[in-house]
Amino acid sequence: MRVAVMSAPGEVRVEDRPEPAILKPTDAVIRLSATCICGSDLWPYRGIEALDGPRPMGHEYAGIVEEVGSAVTSVRAGQFVVGSFFASDNTCEICRSGYQPSCPHREAFGPSGAAQAERMRVPLADGTLVATPQVPDADLVPHLLATSDVLGTGWFAAVAAEARPGKTVAVVGDGAVGLMGILAARQLGAERVIAMSRHQPRQQLALEFGATDIVTERGDDGVAAIKELTGGLGAHSVIEAVGTQESMMQAIHSTRAGGHVGYVGVTHEVSLNGMDLFFSHVHLHGGPAPVRRFLPDLMDRVWDRQIQPGKVFDLELPLDQAADGYRAMDTRQAIKVLLRP
Amino acid sequence: MRVAVMSAPGEVRVEDRPEPAILKPTDAVIRLSATCICGSDLWPYRGIEALDGPRPMGHEYAGIVEEVGSAVTSVRAGQFVVGSFFASDNTCEICRSGYQPSCPHREAFGPSGAAQAERMRVPLADGTLVATPQVPDADLVPHLLATSDVLGTGWFAAVAAEARPGKTVAVVGDGAVGLMGILAARQLGAERVIAMSRHQPRQQLALEFGATDIVTERGDDGVAAIKELTGGLGAHSVIEAVGTQESMMQAIHSTRAGGHVGYVGVTHEVSLNGMDLFFSHVHLHGGPAPVRRFLPDLMDRVWDRQIQPGKVFDLELPLDQAADGYRAMDTRQAIKVLLRP
Repeated sequence: MRVAVMSAPGEVRVEDRPEPAILKPTDAVIRLSATCICGSDLWPYRGIEALDGPRPMGHEYAGIVEEVGSAVTSVRAGQFVVGSFFASDNTCEICRSGYQPSCPHREAFGPSGAAQAERMRVPLADGTLVATPQVPDADLVPHLLATSDVLGTGWFAAVAAEARPGKTVAVVGDGAVGLMGILAARQLGAERVIAMSRHQPRQQLALEFGATDIVTERGDDGVAAIKELTGGLGAHSVIEAVGTQESMMQAIHSTRAGGHVGYVGVTHEVSLNGMDLFFSHVHLHGGPAPVRRFLPDLMDRVWDRQIQPGKVFDLELPLDQAADGYRAMDTRQAIKVLLRP
Repeated sequence: MRVAVMSAPGEVRVEDRPEPAILKPTDAVIRLSATCICGSDLWPYRGIEALDGPRPMGHEYAGIVEEVGSAVTSVRAGQFVVGSFFASDNTCEICRSGYQPSCPHREAFGPSGAAQAERMRVPLADGTLVATPQVPDADLVPHLLATSDVLGTGWFAAVAAEARPGKTVAVVGDGAVGLMGILAARQLGAERVIAMSRHQPRQQLALEFGATDIVTERGDDGVAAIKELTGGLGAHSVIEAVGTQESMMQAIHSTRAGGHVGYVGVTHEVSLNGMDLFFSHVHLHGGPAPVRRFLPDLMDRVWDRQIQPGKVFDLELPLDQAADGYRAMDTRQAIKVLLRP
């Protein structure tokens, strides 16, 4: 079968690899209906994260179950499923508390189960996969795919930032996750959602997802703009969806004392100064999004056509053209690329 | 009047200074019944925090109101009052949300109103001071004094760490604030409170304040000990009451995924690695404790003799011997020193 493999920074090729198989009784094998490229896939693409050899790529997936191991009881062949980007048992104390990516039995996707492929093996299928009521209409597939990571991650950021009625939420980052954070903040009832974006097409999408204000400034100027919009105090809730030093400090400084920062940008090369954090008086929470916690609810919202997170895919390519998709996202010509196996 | 003044690292002298006076209609002047030395006073004493000239010291206070400005309505001459270490209006949006040390009108005590003195000026008296029902019996005074900072700070750490019934709380730091964190965690209903301490007298006090377990290891060994006591997962809640790089990392790594770190140790020279924090999956909250939020409740608990936080004072000296008090705390011969003006 065909799989997208990154062999070196900037080099993605779709190669033939052996078909995945059931290795453990808790596994499932699914045939992908759609997959996509994640902002985090760009870290190794840009050489910021090291590759230890050619890496089969992808961790966002939606598709049809082809086969399940003998111990799997909650999904069966023929069902349409979505799963999160960490396989987890969903029964341990950590999973039950809603932190599935920290499950002691977790498995990250990648080498042993890459999603930018025709088929993939999903470990811990009972804990990881959620099935739709029926096989969905084709137009729902991109929206369901979005719940697998990008929406779930934006949603977690909004929950971590305590977005809710009466709150003003600022969103640092106009990438796909930031845009999903806007959608999430509005769904969670936030009164005002300020998108920080300098790019017209992304501003447009931000407004479509429910942003009420746009701030085009960055860094200290961006902080000043947020303060000006919030009576000098800062936003109640700030979503950090980039993961750089500048964006993290922009998020912390845009938050009022006692407010909440939800951060989901993978914080490469970020270092937080203790005194700066101490006197900011903010709550800080984030990390790898526990998508599995939110997945049933998010899939229901898509199924009921309440939300259309798949609008974040502004480029669709056949899997064989994955390299073009990476290039388009790397150069910011595309926000997020959907791949059709 | 007499005031303790730090002129250089390691040098504290009690000097004569002019009596404080009402400078603004919102001021009060109080005569101190008792004051004390704070762990944070040791930062400049040890040369870790710069002094810009001789500094009148002290920010923890309890005493009798002598005079109030014309705009003060909530306290009057003759009342016994306690206040927090930041003066704040307690009416603005930030104060009402419970973050008084970040009040836009806040004033820190020190040069203009030092508490290691016979008398002090308290700005924003209506927002800052809380009176007891009557002038307290002498034996209550140390306990009431403790609510002014050290108990309020330990309490905030426990609240920030979400200590509550069913939770296991670990406390990093066996100084006065850490010990108050233990008392607070138990009062808030925590099931299990693990004190991290290597010093026998402090362990003893920790047990008296409600610790259920003692861990003597530090750093990575301390983290391993906490994990061993918590089924390999880490504590639900961790109080950080030191403020060094080692103690902060010990706190973060002792916390389970999804757990809460409440940090109140002033984080001098601390730098948090973004990736480390990201994958820890913890909630992080802390900073200067909003003592004023908790003061009425804490004073009630003392008044009703439910708690005896003043046990944390293991050395009592006349104000004139403040230098001995600093020396005793610096060398860890005393946990916390009460000064009698």
